[in-house]
Amino acid sequence: MKKLNVALCGSGRIGRVHAANIAAHPGINLTWVADPMTESAEEVATQYGARPTGSTADVFTDASLDAVVICSPTPTHVQLIEAAAARGIAVLCEKPIDLDIERVRSCRETLAAASIPLMMGFNRRFDPAFAAIHQRITAGEIGRLEHLSIVSRDPAPAPAAYIAASGGIFRDMTIHDLDMARFFIRDIVEVTAHGANVFSDYIAEAGDFDSAVVTLRGRNGELVSITNSRHSAYGYDQRLEAFGSGGMLRADNISPTTVRSFGSRTVEAADPYEPFFLERYAVAYRRELDYFVEAVHTGSPCSPGFDDGMAAMVLADAAAESAATGRTITVKGALQT
Amino acid sequence: MKKLNVALCGSGRIGRVHAANIAAHPGINLTWVADPMTESAEEVATQYGARPTGSTADVFTDASLDAVVICSPTPTHVQLIEAAAARGIAVLCEKPIDLDIERVRSCRETLAAASIPLMMGFNRRFDPAFAAIHQRITAGEIGRLEHLSIVSRDPAPAPAAYIAASGGIFRDMTIHDLDMARFFIRDIVEVTAHGANVFSDYIAEAGDFDSAVVTLRGRNGELVSITNSRHSAYGYDQRLEAFGSGGMLRADNISPTTVRSFGSRTVEAADPYEPFFLERYAVAYRRELDYFVEAVHTGSPCSPGFDDGMAAMVLADAAAESAATGRTITVKGALQT
Amino acid sequence: MKKLNVALCGSGRIGRVHAANIAAHPGINLTWVADPMTESAEEVATQYGARPTGSTADVFTDASLDAVVICSPTPTHVQLIEAAAARGIAVLCEKPIDLDIERVRSCRETLAAASIPLMMGFNRRFDPAFAAIHQRITAGEIGRLEHLSIVSRDPAPAPAAYIAASGGIFRDMTIHDLDMARFFIRDIVEVTAHGANVFSDYIAEAGDFDSAVVTLRGRNGELVSITNSRHSAYGYDQRLEAFGSGGMLRADNISPTTVRSFGSRTVEAADPYEPFFLERYAVAYRRELDYFVEAVHTGSPCSPGFDDGMAAMVLADAAAESAATGRTITVKGALQT
Amino acid sequence: MKKLNVALCGSGRIGRVHAANIAAHPGINLTWVADPMTESAEEVATQYGARPTGSTADVFTDASLDAVVICSPTPTHVQLIEAAAARGIAVLCEKPIDLDIERVRSCRETLAAASIPLMMGFNRRFDPAFAAIHQRITAGEIGRLEHLSIVSRDPAPAPAAYIAASGGIFRDMTIHDLDMARFFIRDIVEVTAHGANVFSDYIAEAGDFDSAVVTLRGRNGELVSITNSRHSAYGYDQRLEAFGSGGMLRADNISPTTVRSFGSRTVEAADPYEPFFLERYAVAYRRELDYFVEAVHTGSPCSPGFDDGMAAMVLADAAAESAATGRTITVKGALQT
Repeated sequence: MKKLNVALCGSGRIGRVHAANIAAHPGINLTWVADPMTESAEEVATQYGARPTGSTADVFTDASLDAVVICSPTPTHVQLIEAAAARGIAVLCEKPIDLDIERVRSCRETLAAASIPLMMGFNRRFDPAFAAIHQRITAGEIGRLEHLSIVSRDPAPAPAAYIAASGGIFRDMTIHDLDMARFFIRDIVEVTAHGANVFSDYIAEAGDFDSAVVTLRGRNGELVSITNSRHSAYGYDQRLEAFGSGGMLRADNISPTTVRSFGSRTVEAADPYEPFFLERYAVAYRRELDYFVEAVHTGSPCSPGFDDGMAAMVLADAAAESAATGRTITVKGALQT
Repeated sequence: MKKLNVALCGSGRIGRVHAANIAAHPGINLTWVADPMTESAEEVATQYGARPTGSTADVFTDASLDAVVICSPTPTHVQLIEAAAARGIAVLCEKPIDLDIERVRSCRETLAAASIPLMMGFNRRFDPAFAAIHQRITAGEIGRLEHLSIVSRDPAPAPAAYIAASGGIFRDMTIHDLDMARFFIRDIVEVTAHGANVFSDYIAEAGDFDSAVVTLRGRNGELVSITNSRHSAYGYDQRLEAFGSGGMLRADNISPTTVRSFGSRTVEAADPYEPFFLERYAVAYRRELDYFVEAVHTGSPCSPGFDDGMAAMVLADAAAESAATGRTITVKGALQT
Repeated sequence: MKKLNVALCGSGRIGRVHAANIAAHPGINLTWVADPMTESAEEVATQYGARPTGSTADVFTDASLDAVVICSPTPTHVQLIEAAAARGIAVLCEKPIDLDIERVRSCRETLAAASIPLMMGFNRRFDPAFAAIHQRITAGEIGRLEHLSIVSRDPAPAPAAYIAASGGIFRDMTIHDLDMARFFIRDIVEVTAHGANVFSDYIAEAGDFDSAVVTLRGRNGELVSITNSRHSAYGYDQRLEAFGSGGMLRADNISPTTVRSFGSRTVEAADPYEPFFLERYAVAYRRELDYFVEAVHTGSPCSPGFDDGMAAMVLADAAAESAATGRTITVKGALQT
Repeated sequence: MKKLNVALCGSGRIGRVHAANIAAHPGINLTWVADPMTESAEEVATQYGARPTGSTADVFTDASLDAVVICSPTPTHVQLIEAAAARGIAVLCEKPIDLDIERVRSCRETLAAASIPLMMGFNRRFDPAFAAIHQRITAGEIGRLEHLSIVSRDPAPAPAAYIAASGGIFRDMTIHDLDMARFFIRDIVEVTAHGANVFSDYIAEAGDFDSAVVTLRGRNGELVSITNSRHSAYGYDQRLEAFGSGGMLRADNISPTTVRSFGSRTVEAADPYEPFFLERYAVAYRRELDYFVEAVHTGSPCSPGFDDGMAAMVLADAAAESAATGRTITVKGALQT
């Protein structure tokens, strides 16, 4: 099978995860690494034998390019997607599409004409545990899904500059959980969100919340509880419980080994969990890339796709509105476009 | 120390739990068992060497009586509390005080004059695991409490007749969790509730929900998530997670033994959890009684007391209102009486 | 049903466990507490409304006596058993029967003529977890039993005086595990034992081991591994694994509650296990007594009986011999008496 | 750093694990794949861009060769090691060195003159959990090591032909556990072994055991318990418990994900463990190779080395002798060569 020529746009933290996975993938050539911070682009390109550039324009003039992986800052996503669409190049794009839902809608119209393979980087759908639960529910193991609980806590808050540009906790952090909710319950019809400021002054001063609880309702009456915090003393906390009419399936956090210690003060103590998403979701990032390459090669539909990216954003906007107004927001129509 | 003479009002399911505990308690004589179903009263009274009666009036004419344990149907609670108050007799009363908050307020005024020891039967506060977490939080083990998650699912729904008289899921079932929330976060200022009908037609037909998610906010910004269902395929589900700035404490369900099985289809499988509250909270009921006897003997304040019973009811009413209107309900004033 | 009149011989640590259980048992009257330390006898007798005596002779002259519970020092056991046999009184006797196997054999002959109900206090057979595993194996859940692993570690070694009179680790401590092995695999045909001195000078000076590993072989080829230590930094360690052709069943240690803590250094940490046998086997002691009372009332055979007590002693002697000689000891004949 | 040119001798099951790891390793070129089954050699060589050959002689005439990985049948190991020694080429050799300890001794003398880097493929030392326990013990976390328990059960027995050539359970299977024991307790002075035939007729007919229990004693009195079975209904069972004066560290089996299921018959059930060593020790094989490459590059000593391979064989022989004679075997001298 012909190897795909792939360009990487953005060589920051997540860009480097993708770079390493692309380089190790037998079905891909990493041909370009584009980043306006040219030193970073050069460093990553050199490491993996690709061409560096400070300008994404170089990338899109390469006639041999098959796909682009977009890991650049959020405000550049739409423009890069549209450039790829203009060229008919496949896209794997980190979330979110854009913080402005109107820009997302406009991009969707542009894409309607182009019909390129486009996959959103909601990597958690590819986490082995979450994917296994999804598969087992689909196979009927716990009957009809009635309640979903998602806990998602970062080890420590991002710095003030990041928070200021993040679009707020719902669009930046909860959005992953909103997509995870939609992975299990496709049609969400109501959003109720509560934000709180319980530990961070600088997040409060930025007008954002450091903690949040979100309740969703699915079309068939399912309820979803999302619990977020920007910090967690015991490390990255990523759990999911799916409760159905016939039982429950639960995914817990991951310790580096199975070692347990027994002492005079505690027993059966595990080592701290994987520190953050790069470690916790390392396998998920690889599986996501496998899936993308397979979809591009076979022409099978990309999932999660653009509409999933937009739906998560609609829910995030609804969460922000709900938290601000103290009202439950009906989102039924917005997702049925 | 003089033994307390105690009368039991109500000899149904919970009445019999109390009867057995009273009979086994070295500091109490079970003197009366009152129940309009005189056969039931006689059966329990005979078993434990007490006098049966079909009328609670007999109980209150007994000059030697020290305390009454009220396990009769909810509509009789206020009247029995007031009769005890008139006599200056101590009360241990099952929840709720009454389904009508105005009747609760009126009863509170009556009690203000009497000042009898009165304890509400929120037995879960005496569960060893929940009590241990409370104590460890108080000792500072996890820093400042930021989020509390309470999961409470019954094994199977009560029959239609019970549901019809129950006052609805929030006043009948969630009320235990609302009190548990207040055990950890005394001042709750906001209630948002969502009800759902996902599995039971007869509960829906009764105008009640079979499932619910409730979000509370404490005075200091703490958020609380309560998850309820009227059924659970894997048995009685009673869990709690307390997340703080310095760590987390979690109480899990209880299996009858530590036995785990390992086979070709699953490994590390535990036996099903204790089936329902009589087994799950057996120790809690005994500790509750110990605490009550101690409080009556020493004159120390009863806790949870009448105001805790009223506060839980105010929160339950707010939950019902929130679920009906889709709005967050502010309850600050109601609890500050 | 007529209540049994029971005398307690020995009011030390285990005697008091039995005293409390007898007092709380609805089918027994505690009539006598006998102990040469008369203050101790008086204290326990007063607490439970029994008659104290410094001499067991008083006990056996009581014509109304139905049963005796023997918790006195080991050297007195045979004499008390024989006194009970002479009177036709039922016996519940703490292990071991005697440290001298010849005295045990002689006692067995005495008993052959008397045929009283006699039960040995191998309380661990009544532990809910071990009993459940036994029952599930009998029901075929893991096929044919192939290997049994028993871990048994005390929290801290007994003082030098106790060690000196104990008969050594195999007769004093391992004997419980040897009986547990026989609970699962009745016919043991080989014993290989290894003692070690790894932490205690005074145990070594007493000519005893502080640690031991014992391997048994059952008639059908089953192997049993017993692991002992006289100390354990994390508390009383009492575990069992039964491996069969179709799976495995495991009983783990018991923490006081299900609470788990999550912090920056460890996660999922449980609280220390129950400190020692009084707490760990509290339920087992009660069930053992229930079983004994039931057997005396109904005339059903007592189990574990005298022959189980003797068999455990034969195995303990074989273990001591094996550890001293470095040879595997065949015990087949000794148990087939 | 210059890439090592590595030849693979043997392209069977384990050979292919090494081939894949070598191919993915940035510091190695896989230059040769040698196997008398030339089709197999060609298949693997083609997959990873190496040269195939049916004769190892071709390999050793390649002047550019830096190292050889030996995964061929056991009888060929010594000859290949000696050929590598003659050329001064580094060796990574699968266990055992040879089934005949005299041949091992002779090979040791040959190597004494050559002093090539030689590492034995006791991959379990590189398992993250076992290695972490080793490191934590070395750091003093549980004080002085007193008892080590190793459980090692294969999912299903090898076929009769394999068993016949295996050298018996102690030399074929237990040898890994004997090395693991020596990883923690270098100087083993006594071996006692028990074999059993509880489930397999063809293994018994081959004069081998299907199950075994081995007890070792270390120079400082430490005891080690090894439990083996050639089958396990719940999958590959690989566990270790290290008990010390200050606590215990335990490594448990590994399930593919953290997913737990809760149903009406069992709760908290995990999915079956990794099926066999290729999956269970996938990470260990990679770390072993990393360590080997690093040692060859830096000239640091290889560990486990030839003497570790010989020591494990001496212990395996002692175990076989002990099982046959029912005596404890002293091995002190044999390891002090």
